[in-house]
Amino acid sequence: MTDPLASLTRKENRASSERADLDRLLDEVPTGVLSTVLDGQPWAVPMLFARDGDRILLHGSTGAGALRHTRAGAPVAFTVHALDGLVFAWNGFESSANYRSAVLRGTLTEVPADQAAAALDHITDVLLPGRMAEIPSSTRKERAATTCLALAITDGSWIYKARNEGSSPPEDGTTDVWTGVVPLRTVAGEPARDEWNTSGVPLPDSIHTLRDRLR
Amino acid sequence: MTDPLASLTRKENRASSERADLDRLLDEVPTGVLSTVLDGQPWAVPMLFARDGDRILLHGSTGAGALRHTRAGAPVAFTVHALDGLVFAWNGFESSANYRSAVLRGTLTEVPADQAAAALDHITDVLLPGRMAEIPSSTRKERAATTCLALAITDGSWIYKARNEGSSPPEDGTTDVWTGVVPLRTVAGEPARDEWNTSGVPLPDSIHTLRDRLR
Repeated sequence: MTDPLASLTRKENRASSERADLDRLLDEVPTGVLSTVLDGQPWAVPMLFARDGDRILLHGSTGAGALRHTRAGAPVAFTVHALDGLVFAWNGFESSANYRSAVLRGTLTEVPADQAAAALDHITDVLLPGRMAEIPSSTRKERAATTCLALAITDGSWIYKARNEGSSPPEDGTTDVWTGVVPLRTVAGEPARDEWNTSGVPLPDSIHTLRDRLR
Repeated sequence: MTDPLASLTRKENRASSERADLDRLLDEVPTGVLSTVLDGQPWAVPMLFARDGDRILLHGSTGAGALRHTRAGAPVAFTVHALDGLVFAWNGFESSANYRSAVLRGTLTEVPADQAAAALDHITDVLLPGRMAEIPSSTRKERAATTCLALAITDGSWIYKARNEGSSPPEDGTTDVWTGVVPLRTVAGEPARDEWNTSGVPLPDSIHTLRDRLR
């Protein structure tokens, strides 16, 4: 039905129904795009998210427009993708990209008040791995100012597609131009300490973890 | 109306109406998410795109579902975002992300046949800068197999938001935990030549350009 990252040749797009493929993507990429329908029009917003088992968690300010429309159970599509490489082919038509993408469908449900603390701490600890060991849990006042929503991951509620290969040769099998793939990845740069922060404080484990993961 | 990348605190989100900010983002990020409405339901797909002056260009196979629904002039939202950093605050509530995001609205129009060759070559040359000097232009047959669509960028058709700062201090102004920002960026790895490619072919300028840009 959908055709993620349409390239000049869609035939190479590969679907997967392996839940492990989906989870790997959702656990690696911290942002997605939430799409819904508002007054018959498409409405979309990029958001941070965190997978929590068989659901993904979103959050935002109670007063924010982003989540107000979807809180009531409107249908949504949540799209996550990673661009893993650029494919330099012998012509433009065969040029392409290596990627992984997922579109999850369903309706958002509000996380009940008695589960909100755990959900919000989970979001922080997924986006900033290990951080909750270094900072306090959310307070009642903070939770009251935050909407936390969940989108269930169920059989048939998602599609996953990926491309991970080189380019296709021309009919005669050779070219006099270089073809292949340039891989892309996200890396973490030098941490920048807040000016107001105590100067003697060492880099915490969470930062080391992130830098090790994204080097 | 929209609240991109809702963090625990949305107040820090900053809107911009500067076209230069929008163009810089569109020219840097090669992918976006196309959202539309299909039978009343939200429908979304990640896609490669290229800005061409006051429009963005999308393309896909003539037979692909991704573009078939939007060819007829259905309203779309096209969302582009970049995650520029992770913000480690003194608590979860103030933790956040630095980002840039844009949502463009409008209806897609088909690029006329007599402009399709230039449009497709432009897409290739934006996604793989300098590549069209190394490979042949699209052929009539390739163009017949490809749908090329445009979304106009006009006053009021887009919103842009960004966050680019450190975390906020607690009320008493100090913490005993490190706070600040870990910047994120996309880098290009070692080019992987296709096995079937002539072994003596040197890396072309387009690859050097890309690696220089994404180092």
